[in-house]
Amino acid sequence: MNSSVSAQLMGEFLGTAILILLGDGVVAGVNLNKSKSQNAGWLAITLGWGLAVTFGVYLVAWMSPGHLNPAVSLAMAIAGKLSWSLVIPYIIAQILGALVGAVLVWLTYYPHWQQTQDSTTILSIFSTTPAIRNYGANFLAELVGTFVLVYGLLAFTKGNFASGLNPIVAGLLITVIGISLGGPTGYAINPARDLGPRIAHQLLPIANKGDSDWSYSWVPILGPLVGGILAALLFNLLK
Amino acid sequence: MNSSVSAQLMGEFLGTAILILLGDGVVAGVNLNKSKSQNAGWLAITLGWGLAVTFGVYLVAWMSPGHLNPAVSLAMAIAGKLSWSLVIPYIIAQILGALVGAVLVWLTYYPHWQQTQDSTTILSIFSTTPAIRNYGANFLAELVGTFVLVYGLLAFTKGNFASGLNPIVAGLLITVIGISLGGPTGYAINPARDLGPRIAHQLLPIANKGDSDWSYSWVPILGPLVGGILAALLFNLLK
Amino acid sequence: MNSSVSAQLMGEFLGTAILILLGDGVVAGVNLNKSKSQNAGWLAITLGWGLAVTFGVYLVAWMSPGHLNPAVSLAMAIAGKLSWSLVIPYIIAQILGALVGAVLVWLTYYPHWQQTQDSTTILSIFSTTPAIRNYGANFLAELVGTFVLVYGLLAFTKGNFASGLNPIVAGLLITVIGISLGGPTGYAINPARDLGPRIAHQLLPIANKGDSDWSYSWVPILGPLVGGILAALLFNLLK
Amino acid sequence: MNSSVSAQLMGEFLGTAILILLGDGVVAGVNLNKSKSQNAGWLAITLGWGLAVTFGVYLVAWMSPGHLNPAVSLAMAIAGKLSWSLVIPYIIAQILGALVGAVLVWLTYYPHWQQTQDSTTILSIFSTTPAIRNYGANFLAELVGTFVLVYGLLAFTKGNFASGLNPIVAGLLITVIGISLGGPTGYAINPARDLGPRIAHQLLPIANKGDSDWSYSWVPILGPLVGGILAALLFNLLK
Repeated sequence: MNSSVSAQLMGEFLGTAILILLGDGVVAGVNLNKSKSQNAGWLAITLGWGLAVTFGVYLVAWMSPGHLNPAVSLAMAIAGKLSWSLVIPYIIAQILGALVGAVLVWLTYYPHWQQTQDSTTILSIFSTTPAIRNYGANFLAELVGTFVLVYGLLAFTKGNFASGLNPIVAGLLITVIGISLGGPTGYAINPARDLGPRIAHQLLPIANKGDSDWSYSWVPILGPLVGGILAALLFNLLK
Repeated sequence: MNSSVSAQLMGEFLGTAILILLGDGVVAGVNLNKSKSQNAGWLAITLGWGLAVTFGVYLVAWMSPGHLNPAVSLAMAIAGKLSWSLVIPYIIAQILGALVGAVLVWLTYYPHWQQTQDSTTILSIFSTTPAIRNYGANFLAELVGTFVLVYGLLAFTKGNFASGLNPIVAGLLITVIGISLGGPTGYAINPARDLGPRIAHQLLPIANKGDSDWSYSWVPILGPLVGGILAALLFNLLK
Repeated sequence: MNSSVSAQLMGEFLGTAILILLGDGVVAGVNLNKSKSQNAGWLAITLGWGLAVTFGVYLVAWMSPGHLNPAVSLAMAIAGKLSWSLVIPYIIAQILGALVGAVLVWLTYYPHWQQTQDSTTILSIFSTTPAIRNYGANFLAELVGTFVLVYGLLAFTKGNFASGLNPIVAGLLITVIGISLGGPTGYAINPARDLGPRIAHQLLPIANKGDSDWSYSWVPILGPLVGGILAALLFNLLK
Repeated sequence: MNSSVSAQLMGEFLGTAILILLGDGVVAGVNLNKSKSQNAGWLAITLGWGLAVTFGVYLVAWMSPGHLNPAVSLAMAIAGKLSWSLVIPYIIAQILGALVGAVLVWLTYYPHWQQTQDSTTILSIFSTTPAIRNYGANFLAELVGTFVLVYGLLAFTKGNFASGLNPIVAGLLITVIGISLGGPTGYAINPARDLGPRIAHQLLPIANKGDSDWSYSWVPILGPLVGGILAALLFNLLK
């Protein structure tokens, strides 16, 4: 990877847009009325999010490292694998990409929003909502899931690995975090994945939408950041 | 790939026939009465179509590049990866292959058509039908899905990639487009995939069939072509 | 592969036993009362059979080519990839292995048979049964499925392929044949897979079993053999 | 692998903790009330456990061989691939890791335990419980499943294999054992996977928990050990 900074930022922007288009897209398809994929189930959602990461990375792999996640970029800086000067620019590109991806989901499923009455269902297509609202426990669940994700991505950098398939392995890691640890909060494990679409939900004239639940929004931002930091510190200790 | 033109056209014909045999086959199995796979669900359908592409490509990989899709062939020409003189012959071979694949699905599930009363269900086994009929929104959904597909296939050409497994990666891309973006229209994302089986539906003496809904047929042709063109233009800009 | 004939036959025997243990095993788990996997669905069955082939091959890969299927061995002989003198010994080893695998399924699920009343359900755990009994159509469905399987395995021999992962690719091919073409007959696509367990069903003192439906047994033997022969002939023509 | 003994033991401890966090995690998510993944089904459980092994191995692959299972370590010693002096230390690290993983599952799903009334459901999230209690048959089911697992892992050591993807292949083997042979006992196939979480269940103040069913606990310990020993002996004979 010897891309220019502008190519890297374009890659993080475009890759995160694709991540959210495919990731929020599966939640839209499973939850919106009259969608052909309605009620496709939790396995469809977790495979969809895993493959959303896989192809978010593949489609921009010649431009950027494909973090697509502020918690990952921060951890990579701590582990010495990303210049500190790029952390804030990467994060801004990721949040903007996530916002654009959410707009595309809104447009792709355009006729389905007015067929769907429940405003909590509609919010949960854009951003995460807790299964049982308990800020401490929800924070911990986001921390644990992101710890596994970031520790895994760092461990892959140590391996003699099938590099051309790395995006598939990363997608499988996202899938199992969703299957196994996603039950309590819907596994944001990525501050941009939650914040960008929440801004889109706030701004867009979505049929049947309710409020954007900003009181919960700090959990899927701080939980992943703290989980990622802890994973990077443990990795630095053990490596 | 140094195949003769006739080998390439045979490959596109045979590969698209296998694509539709396996792709329309899964929709038949899930929807026809008394089928052992009845009600296997959306995940079965999307995995089936993904693997249909994977093996449509693998089974002819020594003869042709395995586009199996006019939107892909057109985009590859725009991106400079296919001779313009081959675009029309490829497309004709793809449509003929899709037609033959649909005939094979009809024969393989022969006793099941007369057990299935609903004519819309029967049409949707051959060609795509919209979840909510709204030509503008349906067109956009086909455009977005095909954009992701074609941009992905072009991005793969930039990578240092596990080439022997490329057909599996392409199949996973088809699967996630189906899981995430297939809800509104059933994701044709391929003009031949929709047109060939629609012609077969028109011509074959299928038990309990209704009309072939030609008024919708332009959407799964033009949407994918425009999406593929836009993806190729963006790729030419960024590469 | 430079194994002795006895190692090859041991490999075909052991690999087919594992194939049936895992393949008939998933059908047992999904259909038997009080099983934890009861009603796991068609996708579980088709993934189970695909992986049954994958690991049937992997576990004996250092001993034999892992055909595990008389239709494959016959086609490989026609295509010049197996000595004709080994065809009959391979087939005998495969049928014996399938019989042993079915006995192991019976033992592994031992307390569950007496909890399951329906004798057709019990037979369908061992051997295939048609969704709609129509010998001509059932024969054609087995022929088409096996054609795709054998043509695929022959095509893989032409490719510059990720050889260490070939058993996974072969397993995915089995999975998609099941998802897409398995609805009418339950896709034997392998004479040994059907005959060995049918003999076991005939001989074993299984609780609640009925008759072994020998009148259907020629379909999952001849359909696959004819499909495999046609695939080998077409491959010889095109290669 | 030239790690120090302490790095190997750290790897076995950490890898088994991740295995149980993700493995018991999926069972928690599918069974606990109000979890977003509730009722995700058997396929989700078996894919989750398979990927739990995959990433348990990947995340510690630079430190230890990633056995994560006393039956595997014992068999590797029999097959001459692990020093006998390391068998007991490995097993202790594995059991302690499993215990810690189970504590993390309890914390991650903290608000959900008090929403779930049935104490057998809660125990089955931590340790295995038989579908039909029959010690002889349950023992045999654990023996057969572990035999396939250990024979497979030994067979992989003979192959010219895609080594960077070995953890994925091992995960798929776990998945198919679960799909196909997990119906009778819930497939512990690993003494540490069952014993560590059972100790955690005994010690932790889990809401709505009942007794820890120690009378069954020898089955998922001895069944896997005997199955692993038999697999190693057969492998030594055939190799």
